[in-house]
Order: sequence, then C-alpha cells, then structure tokens
Amino acid sequence: MKQPVRVTVTGAAGQICYSLLYRIASGEMLGNDQPVILQLLEITPALKVLEAVRMELNDCAFPLLHDVICTDDAKVAFTGADYGLMVGAKPRGPGMERADLLKDNGKIFSTLGKVINEVASPEMKICVVGNPANTNAYILMKNAPNLNPRNISALMRLDHNRAIYQLAEKADKPMNTVQKMTIWGNHSTTQVPDITHTTIGGEAAPSLVDATWANEEFIPKVAKRGAEVIAARGSSSAASAANGVIDHVRTWVLGTEDGDWASMAVCSDGSYGIQEGLIYSYPVTCKDGEWTIVQGLENSAFITEKMKASEKELQDEAETCSDLF
Amino acid sequence: MKQPVRVTVTGAAGQICYSLLYRIASGEMLGNDQPVILQLLEITPALKVLEAVRMELNDCAFPLLHDVICTDDAKVAFTGADYGLMVGAKPRGPGMERADLLKDNGKIFSTLGKVINEVASPEMKICVVGNPANTNAYILMKNAPNLNPRNISALMRLDHNRAIYQLAEKADKPMNTVQKMTIWGNHSTTQVPDITHTTIGGEAAPSLVDATWANEEFIPKVAKRGAEVIAARGSSSAASAANGVIDHVRTWVLGTEDGDWASMAVCSDGSYGIQEGLIYSYPVTCKDGEWTIVQGLENSAFITEKMKASEKELQDEAETCSDLF
Repeated sequence: MKQPVRVTVTGAAGQICYSLLYRIASGEMLGNDQPVILQLLEITPALKVLEAVRMELNDCAFPLLHDVICTDDAKVAFTGADYGLMVGAKPRGPGMERADLLKDNGKIFSTLGKVINEVASPEMKICVVGNPANTNAYILMKNAPNLNPRNISALMRLDHNRAIYQLAEKADKPMNTVQKMTIWGNHSTTQVPDITHTTIGGEAAPSLVDATWANEEFIPKVAKRGAEVIAARGSSSAASAANGVIDHVRTWVLGTEDGDWASMAVCSDGSYGIQEGLIYSYPVTCKDGEWTIVQGLENSAFITEKMKASEKELQDEAETCSDLF
Repeated sequence: MKQPVRVTVTGAAGQICYSLLYRIASGEMLGNDQPVILQLLEITPALKVLEAVRMELNDCAFPLLHDVICTDDAKVAFTGADYGLMVGAKPRGPGMERADLLKDNGKIFSTLGKVINEVASPEMKICVVGNPANTNAYILMKNAPNLNPRNISALMRLDHNRAIYQLAEKADKPMNTVQKMTIWGNHSTTQVPDITHTTIGGEAAPSLVDATWANEEFIPKVAKRGAEVIAARGSSSAASAANGVIDHVRTWVLGTEDGDWASMAVCSDGSYGIQEGLIYSYPVTCKDGEWTIVQGLENSAFITEKMKASEKELQDEAETCSDLF
C-alpha cells in the first residue's frame, strides 16, 4: 500500500464539499490504491457543521481514509499538504458589484497564498474552484512565490464536461465517444467552448453538427449553464462541480487517455498569443503528474477573437486586484 | 462493454440521492465496466428539482451513464428495472406517533409493492433505505408475491460501517483491519451491533477491547449514531447513508472479500431462531449476486436476548400494519 497523501480542502462544510469529500475518500480522485488524509479548513462559525461532515466520513468506514483533520487555522490545514482544493470563496450577494466580489475574494486568496507560501510544499498541486476561480488562482500564485507556478490551476472541467454533454446530445451520440473538447479562457461567461478539433467516435465534430449551432447556441449554452442550473435547482451546481474537481485532479495525476485531452486553466506560457502568467484555460494532455498545453491547433478568426476577449477580461480582473500582489 | 442495467431510485430529488446518484453513475456501485440507466421516481411537486439533478448528472459527462429517466409514475420508473433503491419515505413529523409513521410508510410501500409486482422483473434486487426500512421492505414483499423474496433487502450497512468506525477508534487500529462486524435485527435503536466474532488485524476483537465497553457503550453509540449526526448537522445523515447503499449493493452484486462478511437485512429463513419471513439483519457472505446467512455463530445470552427484543419489535411493526398485506 502507498503512503497516505494529504489533501487540503477549503470551504469544507459547504455544499460542493459535501459532494466532493466522500468521493475523494472512496478513492475516485487519486485511485483505489492511494490512502488519503483529509485536512479540512473552514471559517470558525462553520466548524460545528464540519464536525458533522467528519462524523459521516468516519461512518463510511472508507478503507483509504487514514485521518480527517478539521481546523479553522489555515497553517494547520496546509502543513504538509500534497493537494490543495480551494473550494471556499465569498459568493456574490444581492446588489454586490463585480469589482467588490473580485476584491473580497482576492483578499481571501492573497491571505491563503501567503500561508501556503510559508507552510506548504512547493510541489503541492492546487486546484482553485471558488469564483472568480482564475483570478483567485492568479492572486494566490502572486502571493506564493515559493510554489512552482505549474502546480497552480483553476477548475474548467465542469465547463468541459458540460460542453461534452451538449455536443453529444446535439449529435445524438454517447458522451463517451466525444474526445478533444476544448474550453479556452476564463471560467466565466467569456469562456470559449470550442469544438473545432473535437471528435465524436473518431469523426470530426464540425462535420456532424451545424456550424451556426456550434457558434451561436452551443457556446452561450455552455457558458451560461451555471445560471440554468441555479434557476432549476434554486442553488448553485454542487455535485457536478465536485465531479469536475474529481476529474480535474484525477486527470492531472493519473493522466489523460491516449487520443484525448482535457481543459485546465493553467499559468500561461504565452501559447496561442495569450499573455504569459495569466491563469488561462487551454487544452492539455497530462502524464506523470505534469500537464502540457496542446500545441499547433489552428483557430478561426471567430474563436481567436473570443479567446482575446476572455484574455482581456482576465487582464481587467487582475488589474482590479493589483493592490493584492 | 456490458449491456446497461436499469437502476430505479425513489425519493430521487432528496438529500440522500443527491449524494447517491453521482456515485452510482461514476461506477462505484456496480463497477467501472457496468453502464447504467437511472430511472428516477419522485412525487410530482419534486419533479422540478429532479430535473436539476438530471442536468447536473448530464453535466458530469459520466462515460457509464447511458440515460436518465425522470418520472412521477411508478410504473414507468420500475419497468425493466434490475435494481430498486427505495430511498423515498415519509419522515416523522413533530408530534407524530410511531404507529402513524409505520402506517403512512406502509401505505407507500404497499402501493409500490403492487406496482413492482406488476411491471418489474422477479429478479430485480431491492434495497429499502426509507425508514422504517425493515418493515417497509416486509410490506413491499407481501404486496409483491411475484418477486423472489431473496431479492428484497433493507439497508443495515450504514450501521455496520458506523460500528466498524467505533470499534477501530476504540482499539486505535485502522478501519480496514476490522473484519466480520455484525449487526443483528432491525434498523432501529433495538439493533444489535455485535463484536463477538469480529477480528481486528486477524485478532479477536473481544480480546482487544473491554467487554463492558462493548456491551454498554458500543451498542447504544452505534444504535443512536443517527441522532448524534442530526444534532451536529441539523439534518439526517445523507452522504453516509448513500455510502451505505453503495456498499450494500456492491457487496451483494460483486461479493464479499475472503474472510469477511457484511450485515444485510434479508428475508429470514429461521436462522438463529428468528421468525421466518421477517426482514432481519444477519451477517451474510455474498457471491455471484446471492447472499448466504453466516451459520453456526455462538451467541451469548446477552446478545441473544437483544436479538429477540429486536425480533419482537419487527413482529409488532408488522402487526401494526397488518391491514396492508
């Protein structure tokens, strides 16, 4: 049996984590042979509910779950961590301006970045889930210079999976026949779901669905799916967001399948003309715990323009929070 | 790839199912090579929330999930079903008598039993989760004479897992070293968690923990754990109950490990002097989709007396609902 790894999760008493933690503990994220220690961080008022989460985790008798640590001290939570799943964030309240949302969350992630910089291993792999995820990850990175920036990512896999579903539904094909889906950009409504290079059962997706649908219906449908779920459910996506995290980390650690790739927001190296250093979503392949941006894809003027607009949004978000790094 | 199987789930828009359905769809219950079709039943007012559940299931792009059917018509839900997970039940309201709870749920399960008898395969495997689970299963069985009674069970795995945790914690040993835990009887506070035949790392559990603890603390702690979780969480166990269902069905279908057994409430064959036909929890081994009650265990007078008290409770519950079969 492998040695246990430490998985730190923030916002651990919230709804996404209630769907996430049990799947991590059962081995779905890191594999059936990888024991885990969960290090759960919450704000002080949520510690009582977090204790109930721990009780239920124990009541599952998961063979892989070696320990559960509950704390409101970020230093305790991140000490020795191998993975950091940053789920906790301040949600947008009624009448709140987007700039205020950015700044309030920026403060949370700059504080966490400083703590991580002090106590965590430079090799800790981070997935930021709390919104605005890309800019939160950017601020965290800027405040944690000891970390390897390649280990800081933001979640795009929920968008990626949503896009696979929409395409499979439209083409009337099984979801597991869709490969090489791409989401470019920011996890926001400026994201660019792109089927140009996608295949369905080995056939080029653009030959199977209408171009007008792909540009005018598919893109906004995927980009605004979160709002559609909220309208139906009365609250934000939780189980599907948690599933995105499971998929994101599993792919990163255990690798992409041959002939496929995934979408991850990672620290840009300037690929596809995007500003270096931004946390931008690219198609990536993963092997041995490392991601590689897929190179050489030819993008239409239509897609390129949208990619630049999403880059511009990320630049503006960073500018709004520039006092935090 | 195997042909998809149909899994019917009742109460599908509720909290337990929100923790359960995504784990079924990911392959945790029936294996990574078994495609599934989810047939989700809810009462009419819950169909809108159920639609949101379907949206999120789709947004996970689970390779094994072939279809999701949402309905308020039990006939539609159970047609062609291979598995029936009966999660929906009426909860006990303030000031409600236990007899009323039994009767109200008895009506639900007698109705479902009649529908299942009409439209489902006799080989459908049923796990009743909604409380009072054992008596609900009993009433369902009495109203579905076409079904093989060996395929009707009630969930005890949550109690079983809770007992493993309590024992491992007390003995300060990893949970995955605990084998042959037993829960006898009814899924209620009369249940009998029994470590007499349990081993920890191959050693007899009674030699590792104090007998007074096992009889006076362990039994009520496990039997009343549900109330403890409610007090901490503000609502009933959901994720751990869902995990119990996953474990229950996986063990039933894929088998127990060598040298271990599980606790399942099944139709008694008179083993251990329990009235034949009651849905009573026994230690069972499973192979090829069939359970076998572990025979020949010697029980102390203390345990036997408790087993008879839990049997008596089940007889009384059946008597209360005798107009329903």
